[in-house]
Amino acid sequence: MIDLIALDADDTLWENEVNYRQAEQRFREMLAPYANAEVIQRRLFEFETRNLPTFGYGIKGFVLSMIEAALALSDGGFSGQQVQAIIDLGREMTQLPVELLPGVAETVEALAGRYPLMLLTKGDLLDQEAKVERSGLAGHFKYVEVVSNKDAPTYAAVLAGHGIDPARFLMVGNSLKSDVLPVVALGGQGVHIPHPLTWAHEQAPAHEAEGAAYHTLERIDELPALVESLVGG
Amino acid sequence: MIDLIALDADDTLWENEVNYRQAEQRFREMLAPYANAEVIQRRLFEFETRNLPTFGYGIKGFVLSMIEAALALSDGGFSGQQVQAIIDLGREMTQLPVELLPGVAETVEALAGRYPLMLLTKGDLLDQEAKVERSGLAGHFKYVEVVSNKDAPTYAAVLAGHGIDPARFLMVGNSLKSDVLPVVALGGQGVHIPHPLTWAHEQAPAHEAEGAAYHTLERIDELPALVESLVGG
Repeated sequence: MIDLIALDADDTLWENEVNYRQAEQRFREMLAPYANAEVIQRRLFEFETRNLPTFGYGIKGFVLSMIEAALALSDGGFSGQQVQAIIDLGREMTQLPVELLPGVAETVEALAGRYPLMLLTKGDLLDQEAKVERSGLAGHFKYVEVVSNKDAPTYAAVLAGHGIDPARFLMVGNSLKSDVLPVVALGGQGVHIPHPLTWAHEQAPAHEAEGAAYHTLERIDELPALVESLVGG
Repeated sequence: MIDLIALDADDTLWENEVNYRQAEQRFREMLAPYANAEVIQRRLFEFETRNLPTFGYGIKGFVLSMIEAALALSDGGFSGQQVQAIIDLGREMTQLPVELLPGVAETVEALAGRYPLMLLTKGDLLDQEAKVERSGLAGHFKYVEVVSNKDAPTYAAVLAGHGIDPARFLMVGNSLKSDVLPVVALGGQGVHIPHPLTWAHEQAPAHEAEGAAYHTLERIDELPALVESLVGG
């Protein structure tokens, strides 16, 4: 009954958002002479939102948004050295260790023995590939797909490319908006595993989730039992 | 005898390098108060080379390298406004029209009627997808693959993912180093269509091409006849 299980990566398999939160903290410290924390954070979010369609998800776009926000907030007072410090912060982010979430290693290994697994993530191609490599999980995934956006047409295209019927597809992730609702809309199974940190852009308005039938788990190690119950039922 | 034909995109199907050359020209003008053109160009190339492993190919990494080179060349003299001008230059690059090379539209259409086609390109995922969309060619490609690097292991993985025997695979592109030599090394057929503008990072040292058996065409519209001769022979 299930031909493919796909797992989101950032904040489903490993910590990610916390790295952005820590970078934002350092960014606010750099900008403290020019504005208070709330204003800085709001302005950064505005630039990120504006830049998403052109620069996309990931660290490089985040760095460009931080630079633009810094220049705007400091009204030109920001020095070249400070701009360089932002770029260095981004470079550091690309080198951070990949910290698996609790239960991930065992769960992925257990599932991989029974189902074909796909790692299905959006963001910067090079950065995501490097994280898959460093995670030590690469060998458990039959497919790794990095997409630029996780909407229903993208899922439909990925599934068609692998000859998978959406009704026999299960997707697992921490974002209702990106991992669960578009898959449910296609007739697939969605499993939501909330993470305490979720970027504002990944939060689905409550009305969008209304009436959608999906599963919610607290921890990923509950996933094998859920899958067995779906397959057996 | 040929199960899949893959085509590179940038400077094989459409102009790309010229956009970078024009941006570099504007970059040199911005930096003219601080150094001569040759020094500026060399310094930019150094930062690009250093940043490739972390930031990868594409416009965003190029923008970050331009900013770093500008800060280094101006020894901190570069203003916030000038940094913003570099980011704006990058944003403009993401919006440029896709200009097909001569003969591409007819050739791709003709080949698509006879063989499954793959567009196989490296670089920034979002930017490459947007260009495929704007090119008007998307409908002719059965597969679109954006990879982070075009080396032999990457080709092997892509072919394995689609169940294609390398001996029945033909790859076409303007870069000997990325499009031709790794495919020939795997036992596939490589077709080199040189483009007058080729980035230094894409130039293969002469000794690497020595002894490799590949085809060279002047124009892409010679490709269907070459393919027929290979299949018929």
